[in-house]
Amino acid sequence: MAFHAKKLINDPNDVVTEFIEGLVETYPGLQYLDGFPQVKVVLRADVSGGTYDKVAVISGGGSGHEPAHAGFVGEGMLTAAICGDVFASPPVDSVLAGIRAVTGPMGCLLIVKNYTGDRLNFGLAAEQAKSEGYKVETVIVGDDCALPPPRGIAGRRGLAGTILIHKISGAAAAAGLSLADVATEARRASEMVGTMGVALSVCTLPGRVTPDRVGPGKMELGLGIHGEPGAAVADLQPVDVIVSHVLKQILSPETNYVPITRGSRVVLMVNGLGATPVMELMIASGKAVPKLQLEHGLAVDRVYTGSFMTSLDMAGFSISIMKADQAILQRLDAATKAPHWPVGVDGNHPPAKIPVPLPPSRSTKSDESLGRPAQLNAQGQILEVAIEAAAHAVKKLRDNLNEWDSKVGDGDCGSTMYRGAAAVLEDMQNYPLNDATETVNEIGSSVRRVMGGTSGILYTIFCKAAYAQLKASTQGVVTSKNWAEALEASIAAVSKYGGASAGYRTLLDALIPASAVLQERLKAGDDPATAFLLSSEAALEGAESTKHMQAQAGRSSYISGEILASVPDPGAMAAASWYRAAALAVKYKYQTPS
Amino acid sequence: MAFHAKKLINDPNDVVTEFIEGLVETYPGLQYLDGFPQVKVVLRADVSGGTYDKVAVISGGGSGHEPAHAGFVGEGMLTAAICGDVFASPPVDSVLAGIRAVTGPMGCLLIVKNYTGDRLNFGLAAEQAKSEGYKVETVIVGDDCALPPPRGIAGRRGLAGTILIHKISGAAAAAGLSLADVATEARRASEMVGTMGVALSVCTLPGRVTPDRVGPGKMELGLGIHGEPGAAVADLQPVDVIVSHVLKQILSPETNYVPITRGSRVVLMVNGLGATPVMELMIASGKAVPKLQLEHGLAVDRVYTGSFMTSLDMAGFSISIMKADQAILQRLDAATKAPHWPVGVDGNHPPAKIPVPLPPSRSTKSDESLGRPAQLNAQGQILEVAIEAAAHAVKKLRDNLNEWDSKVGDGDCGSTMYRGAAAVLEDMQNYPLNDATETVNEIGSSVRRVMGGTSGILYTIFCKAAYAQLKASTQGVVTSKNWAEALEASIAAVSKYGGASAGYRTLLDALIPASAVLQERLKAGDDPATAFLLSSEAALEGAESTKHMQAQAGRSSYISGEILASVPDPGAMAAASWYRAAALAVKYKYQTPS
Repeated sequence: MAFHAKKLINDPNDVVTEFIEGLVETYPGLQYLDGFPQVKVVLRADVSGGTYDKVAVISGGGSGHEPAHAGFVGEGMLTAAICGDVFASPPVDSVLAGIRAVTGPMGCLLIVKNYTGDRLNFGLAAEQAKSEGYKVETVIVGDDCALPPPRGIAGRRGLAGTILIHKISGAAAAAGLSLADVATEARRASEMVGTMGVALSVCTLPGRVTPDRVGPGKMELGLGIHGEPGAAVADLQPVDVIVSHVLKQILSPETNYVPITRGSRVVLMVNGLGATPVMELMIASGKAVPKLQLEHGLAVDRVYTGSFMTSLDMAGFSISIMKADQAILQRLDAATKAPHWPVGVDGNHPPAKIPVPLPPSRSTKSDESLGRPAQLNAQGQILEVAIEAAAHAVKKLRDNLNEWDSKVGDGDCGSTMYRGAAAVLEDMQNYPLNDATETVNEIGSSVRRVMGGTSGILYTIFCKAAYAQLKASTQGVVTSKNWAEALEASIAAVSKYGGASAGYRTLLDALIPASAVLQERLKAGDDPATAFLLSSEAALEGAESTKHMQAQAGRSSYISGEILASVPDPGAMAAASWYRAAALAVKYKYQTPS
Repeated sequence: MAFHAKKLINDPNDVVTEFIEGLVETYPGLQYLDGFPQVKVVLRADVSGGTYDKVAVISGGGSGHEPAHAGFVGEGMLTAAICGDVFASPPVDSVLAGIRAVTGPMGCLLIVKNYTGDRLNFGLAAEQAKSEGYKVETVIVGDDCALPPPRGIAGRRGLAGTILIHKISGAAAAAGLSLADVATEARRASEMVGTMGVALSVCTLPGRVTPDRVGPGKMELGLGIHGEPGAAVADLQPVDVIVSHVLKQILSPETNYVPITRGSRVVLMVNGLGATPVMELMIASGKAVPKLQLEHGLAVDRVYTGSFMTSLDMAGFSISIMKADQAILQRLDAATKAPHWPVGVDGNHPPAKIPVPLPPSRSTKSDESLGRPAQLNAQGQILEVAIEAAAHAVKKLRDNLNEWDSKVGDGDCGSTMYRGAAAVLEDMQNYPLNDATETVNEIGSSVRRVMGGTSGILYTIFCKAAYAQLKASTQGVVTSKNWAEALEASIAAVSKYGGASAGYRTLLDALIPASAVLQERLKAGDDPATAFLLSSEAALEGAESTKHMQAQAGRSSYISGEILASVPDPGAMAAASWYRAAALAVKYKYQTPS
């Protein structure tokens, strides 16, 4: 299978210069040299070679590894990054321009990944700069642990471990060390780090057709960062297994790539190769830490997880392990303004993170307020008949609701409402009916226990909002004004969290007119039971009127107007029916006191 | 085409908990609640609800958007993030646990992306928390500009613009503002931001088979962050064109999504959707800024480029534009410890970045030292015959070198060396031959001008290293000891930058023995010409001995031992031949003084 990869670019020849233009727009502290398209150098905007009083730390190489290397330019890390074309070493003149631009009397350190082209071009530039009187040191990093060691110099490529050398060198330079001392720290660090990569796909060069040599269900182990084939192809495994394998390879005592033995302290870098989501990188880090601790007997002092040294759009990651000591940790932790060095990663790790215990509920319910009272008071009796009437009305309406809903929704409105009503009736024997406020809260809990989906949560919100309002505004007895305010608060909460308003063809089209009439009649001086009854008529009218509304939310919004006109919104009808039934029962109860 | 996406994960059901485990290993400042797998809450390790004296800022939603939301937890941004399963809203109890864990007397602000599930679950948790006595405010963010506005509340999804609301709210809370004031700032900001996305591929859910509905050469415009289809499918265009289209859509005066008009100040966020390399995101930012300035008449005050709110492994990006003023910029610039908020992005932008001029060479060559002197002195005469002899020897050997190289390399060694020798002979009329040091430098320049490839750079490095050594150690006259030191320095540079050592079957196998014999004979008191001659015999022997070497570097490392045994390394033979010819000519010149 070969495919012409889709990329969000313009001319494939311009990707590096256009990347740099975007980079300096994003980061005010970065600048670039005026030499496009040949010279592509990103440097600190605040450094000028003639006067810079620290050792300049310069790195770079082919592009396609973003954010490396330009994303690591900043105080405390790189002073300049020399960018080649994609996967092509930068030319000598480009390196030389970078050296001249940022190197002051303290000299400069070149950090070069171990590739022939980079070694040669940076090398010649170094020699040329020396002949111009600059103090220059070069450190070549080869951290690859994938290929068997006796393969000559070409065997150990420079990979993501180089980023750690950038950081250590940059911090040493920022601390004011001499060129010789910065170079010594960089060389020492470069001997302590090993890296190995795993890929699920090849990378695709801008403008090129790339054969996907990896294939379905396969992965490549021990690859480089330029699309070159890995050391081995294997069946894709769970990442647990992959991480174990890679760690063993890096830490192998036979190959002795890195001087790490049981009891060593190490830092871990899990590096995405360009198209690997943060989620997968974090999963790998989360697995690597306990394996390093338990299987290899190492103390993991720092973890760096992210995409630092990529390979265009390759899916996969590399793992780097560096032996650490206090001096190295101090350099890694030192502050830097380099935009792509990770944040919040400094400081000591506990050997294991113990999660924070779940905090308890602050609920103030006392035991005595719960449970049905032995004797119902007047309000408790009214509440009981209202709840019973409402619940029975909903149960009776089940088939109608389901039928309407089958035309405009998923057909289960009646069944869902029935479940809620049945639970309320069942739980009612335990409701503290003399305390209307707490009873409303309990109704919410009954509904939440059995009603799933959107309507279940909306009705729970309805009850909880009423409860919060009643709790805040009442002292013992709940007045009709309190009920009206509670209804208003419930409607506001359902509207806010449910996202609907009047006219959206939802239960609010029953409840909003009901609330308005209730408040109006109470203000006009009607007795509560009458006001409630008139309000319930408005609820029914409102529910019927949904036939003429275009749905704005939920599944009904995809149904044609003609179909909608033949049925009312089942949610609105359900709301109107329980409201109406409660109002009738209350009115009847008032008229015929026990 | 349908495919089972390859992912670096373990059990697809565990991806979120394992992500969180890796996250807290990476960032010591983050912690999680003990409630896996139901409760998945990441919180600041330094905050405990009972005592927290600032407004807690809480967000979250379905997972699959990493680093959002957990990567934005940290002082100055989110106090806690509630994580649902992939693309599934977190359950109410999870939200409630998060609220309880970090909310103190100042209360908490919930920032919810506008999806029904999130609104309902966060909403119910908010009402429940209120009933427990917590102060809670909720802000719902819907920044989507892809769908036509009169589509009801469902039309404006919460997208990457939400990250900016997180930052503004977090900074306001960190500044000590009251809950009401933090909520007011959050609401105001949420009305000022618009976002639209472009995708090249769908995302693939862990453990699922996903049809690639986008297809080759196509892109989707106006998509969400859950794999839902975009508003339109179109032919893939250069990113320039895509950026123009998206900006026009967001800023359209007809739809009036955002209150931005000509002359407004704005901030720009270019957000990767999970599998988009940094290079492509930066290219988009680099194009968006001038378009906003020139085509839309806006001042771009800040640019945020990166992967903030992703959609698993989707390739593509979204662009968010927020209207900015001094108050908003202050919140965006405020310090935060949230690990995934971008670094180095604060501070004012110049209207355009003028690149730094290329620095001049510090070369100290004066005009008079250049050019052939009218009269050659003794040393100049010897130098002239040595260079001429060496160059002619290389030219004569062209066909042999090419033949050898055709067996072990790419067959052009002779031609490449010939080009270099011819250039030296041609340029020699301008060499300052009485100044041996500068002449060596000029030979390097001649070689560099015409010889490409590895050997061209290596010979240039050879000359430049000798030049730097001679310049540092000589005063006017170059002694035989100086020459010997220069040869040693050249070999060291070629070995370092070329990566080869003795026995690697390269030109060093001629030069290293030559250097050793030269130093030995000079130390033994031989006259320089004799020492040079004996040294050149060692060079020839060394070159011949390469037949018995296995190649370690370069192309020959892939050739079988039998073939290699039949030919010497052409590079070593070329080096031996010019060295031998120069030595013979010098010896002859000494014996027959002019």
